[in-house]
Parts: sequence; C-alpha cells; structure tokens
Amino acid sequence: MEKILSKWESLSAWSSVLRFLDINLRSIGQVMFQNNPLTGLLFLAAIAWGSYAACVPQVAIAGVVAVVVANLTAQWLHVDTEALHAGLYGFNGILVGLALATFLAPGPLLWVYVILGGAVSVVVMLGTTNVVKPWGGALTFPFVLTTWLLLLATYGFSGLAGAALPTGNIVTAFQPYQGNPLQLIDLVQGVFLSISQVFLKASSIAALLLLVGLAVSSLSAAAFALGGAILAVLTAHLFGAESDLITGGLLGFSPVLTAIALGTVFYQPKWRVVAYTIVATVFTVIVQSALNVALTPFAIPALTAPFVLVTWIFLLPRRCFEPTSIGAGDAATAGTT
Amino acid sequence: MEKILSKWESLSAWSSVLRFLDINLRSIGQVMFQNNPLTGLLFLAAIAWGSYAACVPQVAIAGVVAVVVANLTAQWLHVDTEALHAGLYGFNGILVGLALATFLAPGPLLWVYVILGGAVSVVVMLGTTNVVKPWGGALTFPFVLTTWLLLLATYGFSGLAGAALPTGNIVTAFQPYQGNPLQLIDLVQGVFLSISQVFLKASSIAALLLLVGLAVSSLSAAAFALGGAILAVLTAHLFGAESDLITGGLLGFSPVLTAIALGTVFYQPKWRVVAYTIVATVFTVIVQSALNVALTPFAIPALTAPFVLVTWIFLLPRRCFEPTSIGAGDAATAGTT
Amino acid sequence: MEKILSKWESLSAWSSVLRFLDINLRSIGQVMFQNNPLTGLLFLAAIAWGSYAACVPQVAIAGVVAVVVANLTAQWLHVDTEALHAGLYGFNGILVGLALATFLAPGPLLWVYVILGGAVSVVVMLGTTNVVKPWGGALTFPFVLTTWLLLLATYGFSGLAGAALPTGNIVTAFQPYQGNPLQLIDLVQGVFLSISQVFLKASSIAALLLLVGLAVSSLSAAAFALGGAILAVLTAHLFGAESDLITGGLLGFSPVLTAIALGTVFYQPKWRVVAYTIVATVFTVIVQSALNVALTPFAIPALTAPFVLVTWIFLLPRRCFEPTSIGAGDAATAGTT
Repeated sequence: MEKILSKWESLSAWSSVLRFLDINLRSIGQVMFQNNPLTGLLFLAAIAWGSYAACVPQVAIAGVVAVVVANLTAQWLHVDTEALHAGLYGFNGILVGLALATFLAPGPLLWVYVILGGAVSVVVMLGTTNVVKPWGGALTFPFVLTTWLLLLATYGFSGLAGAALPTGNIVTAFQPYQGNPLQLIDLVQGVFLSISQVFLKASSIAALLLLVGLAVSSLSAAAFALGGAILAVLTAHLFGAESDLITGGLLGFSPVLTAIALGTVFYQPKWRVVAYTIVATVFTVIVQSALNVALTPFAIPALTAPFVLVTWIFLLPRRCFEPTSIGAGDAATAGTT
Repeated sequence: MEKILSKWESLSAWSSVLRFLDINLRSIGQVMFQNNPLTGLLFLAAIAWGSYAACVPQVAIAGVVAVVVANLTAQWLHVDTEALHAGLYGFNGILVGLALATFLAPGPLLWVYVILGGAVSVVVMLGTTNVVKPWGGALTFPFVLTTWLLLLATYGFSGLAGAALPTGNIVTAFQPYQGNPLQLIDLVQGVFLSISQVFLKASSIAALLLLVGLAVSSLSAAAFALGGAILAVLTAHLFGAESDLITGGLLGFSPVLTAIALGTVFYQPKWRVVAYTIVATVFTVIVQSALNVALTPFAIPALTAPFVLVTWIFLLPRRCFEPTSIGAGDAATAGTT
Repeated sequence: MEKILSKWESLSAWSSVLRFLDINLRSIGQVMFQNNPLTGLLFLAAIAWGSYAACVPQVAIAGVVAVVVANLTAQWLHVDTEALHAGLYGFNGILVGLALATFLAPGPLLWVYVILGGAVSVVVMLGTTNVVKPWGGALTFPFVLTTWLLLLATYGFSGLAGAALPTGNIVTAFQPYQGNPLQLIDLVQGVFLSISQVFLKASSIAALLLLVGLAVSSLSAAAFALGGAILAVLTAHLFGAESDLITGGLLGFSPVLTAIALGTVFYQPKWRVVAYTIVATVFTVIVQSALNVALTPFAIPALTAPFVLVTWIFLLPRRCFEPTSIGAGDAATAGTT
C-alpha cells in the first residue's frame, strides 16, 4: 500500500494533470478527514455505486463537477499550496454538488447552481478558516452554508424546483410512536446507512466501500466511524426517534463525523478523549433531531450542520486536552495551525 | 455576616466535601453574578419554595442534580481552579436543570436529559468564554444554547414530551388589547415576578428571598435588580404588551439581569453608566418581545436569550467606558480578564 | 466642485453647527460608502423626493431624526472623532429611521422607536466594528439587527402596528410563473428601482439623484452601482424570480451595495477583483431570494442583510487580494485598519 502511494506521489509530482487528479481524489477523502488519494478513489466508487443504484447518475456527476470547479477556483484565488494539495479546498465542493443534485430536479439551471456553488464554497472555506483558525477547522460549514442559501433561494425561483426537499411546516408535538418495534436487522441497516449518508447515499454497499476507504488510510478512523454509527443508532432508539429516520441513517451521519473528528483528528486518542467523544457523539444525535425540528418551517434539510455545531462546541475548550501533534499525513487539521 | 463567611471559608478550605458544597452554593449565586455562598443558599431557598408552592418538587431537584453534574464535569475537564471555586462553571447547569424540568414532563429520560444537559453546559461555557474573553463574559449563553437544543430535539423524540412548551405558530399581527386596564397591584406583582422568573418561578415570596440574597452580597445589585424590574414593567406597559405577560414577570426577568450586569458587574456605577444601563434595560424589554415572536414557529421559549444578546451588544463597545477593576470578590467577571 | 467642498470644509471647521450638519450629510453619503457632504445632500434630496412622491413625508422626517439622534449618541459615547466626522456613526441611523417609518404605522410610539433605534444603532455599530475590524467593516449590519429586533417586537405590542410588513407564512414551493414575459422597459425600471431601494424608495427620479450623488464623489462607485443593478436584474430574470420583485428593485438593492463595496471600497479595481465582484453580485441575488424565503415565517423584511452576509463572506478571505491603501477620503474603511 505504502509503495503504491509513494509511486503515485512521484508520478503526481511529475505531471500537472496527475497532480490535479490527485488533489481531487484527496478532496473526496477529506470529507472524512483522510488526506489519501486511494481513500478518495474508494469514496468515489461508493458515490458512483450509490448514485447508480438509486438511478440518479446526475448526482455523482454533479459531485465531480463541483469538486473540480472548487479546486480550479482555489487555484485562481492563489490559496496556500500545501492545503490545496491536501484536498482541503475541495471537500466542501463535492458535498455541495451531491446535495444540490440530490434535492433539486435536473435541468440546465441546476448545473449553473453546481458550478456557482462549487466556486462559492471555496470563498466560504477561506473565510471560515480565518475565523476558526485559533481553535479548530472549518469542517463542513462551507458546504452547509452554501447549500442552505442555494436551496432556500429556489423557493423564490421558478427556474429551479425541489425534487426531494422536505415540506415546510410549523413545529408540532411528536406523533406517538405507532410502528412495529425495531428488529436487530433494522438497527444493523441503520448503522450502515449512517455511514453512507455522509455522502447522502442510502446504500450498504457504499457504506462498506467507505469503511474500506477509511481503513486503508487509518484503522482508527474506520473504528471511530463504525463505533459512532452504532452509538448514534442506539441513542436515537433510546430516545424514541422515528424508526424510518433511524433505519435510513438520517440521525447517524453527523454523529459518525463527530466521532471521527474528535476521536482521531483533533485530539490524541486517550481514555479521557474517548469519553469526551462519546458524550459529543450522543449529543450530536440530539442536535440532529433539534436542527431537523428547527429547520421544519424553512423546508430545508439539516445537512451536516449538527456535526459542525457539536464539533465546534467540543473543540472550543481545546486547552483542557493536549492537541494532537499535526503531521504531514494529517492535513485535515492544517487549518488549525 | 463577614465573620460567618470567613469562618465558612476556612471550614471549606479544610474539607473537600464542604468545598464542593461551597462551589455549588456559589454557582447558584452566580446566576445573578454573586460569588457568595450565603446568597446561593437564599437563592436555593427561593427555588425550593417556588417549586414546592407550584407542586413541582422535581424542578428544584433537577436544578440541584444539574448543578452538581456541571461542577463534577468541570473538575473532570481540569478547568481553572479559581473560576471553578467561584461557581462560574455551575450557574448555567442549575438553569438547564430548572428549565428542562419546568418545560418537559417527568419520566426517566428527563433525568438522562438533566445529567447530559448539566455536563454539556460546562463544555459550552468553556468554549463561549474563549470566544468572548476579549470583551465580556459568557453570561447565560451556555444555558440558553444547551436548553434550546435539548428542547427542540424533544419534538423528534417520542420518549420525551413537553409539559409547558409554547405552541408553534407562524407570526401574526398582535390581537387588539381587550383586557381590563392594569391596576397598580398588577404592576407590583409584575415587578416581583420579573425577579423570581430569573429562576423560572412565579412567586413573590421567592422574589423576596432573591432580593435578600442579593442584598447580603451587594446592596447595589439588589437596587439595580429592583430598578430594572420596575423599568421593565413600565416599558412593557407603555408599548401595550399583553397584560398576562407583564403581570407574570415574563417580560421582566431578562431586563433584571441586564440591569445587574451592566449597572454593577461590568461597568463602574457612574451617571453615564446608569443612563447607558437604562437604555439597555428598556431595549431588553423590546428584544424579549422580539425573541418571543421570533421563536413562535419553533415552539420553544426565549429563556434568557434577550439578556445575553442585549448585554453582549452593550458590552462590546467597552472602550467607551472605563471597565471595573476586577477584585477577588467579583469573580463573575473572571472570564473577562 | 473641489473648490466648493474645500470652502465648505473650512466653514465647518469654524462653526460647530455647520460641522454637525456636515457630519449628518456625510452620514447619509456613507450609506453608499461616500464620505462627501455634497453626495449626502443629493442622497437626502432623493429620500425627500421619494417620500414626497409616495405621500409618506414622515419617512424622510424619521430618517433625519434618527441620523441626528445617532450622531448625538455617538458624541455622548465619546467615539473616535475622525470616524464620527466621516459620518460612520450615522449611516445606520438614517436607515433605521427610514425603515421603521416605512414598515410601521404612524403614531407617537413610532417616534419613541425612531429615537431609541437611532441611539441603539450606534452601540451596535461600535460593537460590530470591534468584532469585524481584522478583516472588514460593520457595513449595514447595525441597521439590519436593530431594525429586525424593533420590527419583530411590534408583533407583541398593541401600541405599534405594521403598515407594510410582509405576511407571515411557512415556506412553500414557488407558484409557477404565470405573468406576461418581462419587457425591456420593465428591466430598465428594475435597474433604476434597484438603486433607489437602497434607501427603501421606489422612484426612478430618486435613483437618478442617487447616481448623480455617487458620481460627484466617485465615478467608479456610480459605474459599479449601475453595473451591479443591471447584473442583478438579469440574474434574477435568468433564475425566474417573481417579476414584481424584479421590476420593483427588490432583488437588486443588496447586489448594488455588494458591487460598490467589493469593487471600489475594500479592494483595488483590477480584472481579478472585477471577476470576484461579479461572482459576489450574482450570489447576492441568490442570497436575497434565500433570506426573503427564510424570513417568511417571521413576517419581517430581509433589509440589506443579503449585502452584509455576502460582502462579509467575500471579504473574509482578504489575504488573497491586495487590500486598498486607505486614504483620508475613503473613510468607509476606517473600521478596517
């Protein structure tokens, strides 16, 4: 594995085309904090499979278009080369592309949106990084902000229509739980889809590809992702969340990211950190439910906002724990130095 | 009084159990910026009486549980010892506990919520303090954020039900004022309940206990609390707010806190500061009404958010006034140095 | 022109009454970033004409009252003299006054609101400037925040009634576009009203006065204002926005401000900056639509929030471009040094 990667790295250094390909693959890997082109390739396979299986190939294409636009925009804006090469200016772009094509109906203006969204995500990334530098990274905040604004605007534009946007409503009391009790098989499905929903996919095969992609880069990241998903599903079940949301992985994708971020990226794994990460992961499930509710009147999805909010809350007190020493292979934290 | 307190202090220094009791009492006092265990004891009596009189003993118990959990969490996170001993990591916890048990129906998951909320409030406190350090304190923002998220999430959980949450609605024009004109007695009641509602209680006896608790620590704090409550009730009446809200103290508890904070804690009382505090207190009544309206679609209460927002707005220009010299006995501002 | 202005400046230096008049005129000019009393006078003429033509003289009066109150408050708070003389503490005040009198019905409490709003806008200005100093200016954020809070609060007050506030609603899908296709004449009207709506006026004559006012101070500001308005109207048309909003200038006033701010105030005009400003201006149209939608449940207008949000987003990455050298005549950026 090491050999293949170092061979690839020397090829990339030699060809600007391969370097640009490398940057885009690393960008895809950085969605889950992995600065690794092989991880990016496996993640891309997961996205492609998930889109193909759900008969929405335009979603995968939009993701690729947006990540390329984002990295071209970053180059045009003369961003820091090291961070660019680590894929830090592209991971929000691919999520913007995937989300826009998932929630909006296809059409020419969708592609205007994908290109504009990819470009703006870089500007937001630069700004957010400047603000949060003293204590953390931008995480997927640029994706969330850019996508929220673009989706909200469609309610005022006849040229763009929602395809899978939630219905707007005022907040009302929870409808009593009527469904059958959840079976173990449902919970297992919930765990897998919690992982694939990080890329807005509901596919167990995609989830397995994502776990393999994590494992080739960092076994501990794969373990925290799986552990975070299990903890999220159990927590959501304990509080009596709607079973469709649990089994669809829709309450688990943010907690998965929280677990990876706090457990492996920003803090050194120690027992205290593991306990701290568990509290944060459980709290992310609650915040996912809270933001789902808070966004009900606006008819837009919460995206990964719960992950961003909780991870920032749990990163801000930073001085209580020793920060990780940041190596070249851990570029997700480059924005934090 | 001085003698009792210094005797108590030497006892606390000697016993870790008494020290922990001291920390929790000071935490309760810090809700109104008083770093004084006797004040905390009188405030606790007010809470206990208010809960007993309203037949909701679980509210007082939840407050005590949450403040204890918060201070234990703070110790586990190795927070600054001086701030811990001053009660600065517990005052948000007690408010979280009181609010959760006030707005949610009793049940086992309520207590999971109270414990989790108490713990998370400390993390939010650490982070908020890091952000606002250059110009102010965290105030009760950690309480507001933590409680809002926990309450919103219940609308997605069948295991937790609202007991006294507001009904969600879209914002509509004010219904013309039909009630009888307010009598002096109503206004007096509004003044007292504005003070007791700081601890989510509607009880004149609790209000008197709170005023005595303030007075034993700082006569000027008691005077600003009473003055703030009177000003708030008159302002709300002038603008034609709903009479039930006025007489229930529901438009006055945030202005009371604004008056204490700006008039006695963060600025030195001078005529210019008094005028500045009056403008801020009047504006807090307007912001209380504004946030009540803004939160209507979300079906959650404003809590002390109006106090936090207005006090931060009026603290940010800081350089225009000379800051108070911060003594050991004024630890509420420890986060501001 | 130069001669008249230097004559006026020497008169102002001599008389404190003329100096105060000068400050208030410059405050009006600063709404569009022009530190020039003649520009302010022409802008005031535009406001007066727009109010007179629409039979709402109280709107212009409220604007004047609020700007005077704001500048008196700024003096009382001992703000920085240079920034005060450049009109930087008054431009939010005049907008608060215009907006309150536009959206609320006349009455004695309206004038309490106008005075309070003018005063509070200065406090918010001081605080915002402290926060954004490292990378930008406060822009019209103080106007937006103060006015939103004051307008929201009226839904809880029987003493203040809305006159032109939007109706609250939940967010619903866009109603298919039924109107006649837009004619060129409609687009031209949309361009002019996009400029006059910066001061909440729907008047082509006011727009011409504003353009002349810009031109006497800065030809490039006038060009960017006109260009921004044209780009905004075309973008809104492309996305299929409601034709009434386009022709009424209601999707264009924020993009006009974005274009002036990014193209002429904060960055030096170069080709890269022009391209950057075009992207930001197009994005402001989308954000205008997004915030119109997001504020639907709250029944309040977006005001210039889209301009503030997008301009801040595009200013934050600052280091990618060279900042303008800040001269004495470009005091709008005084808060950025």
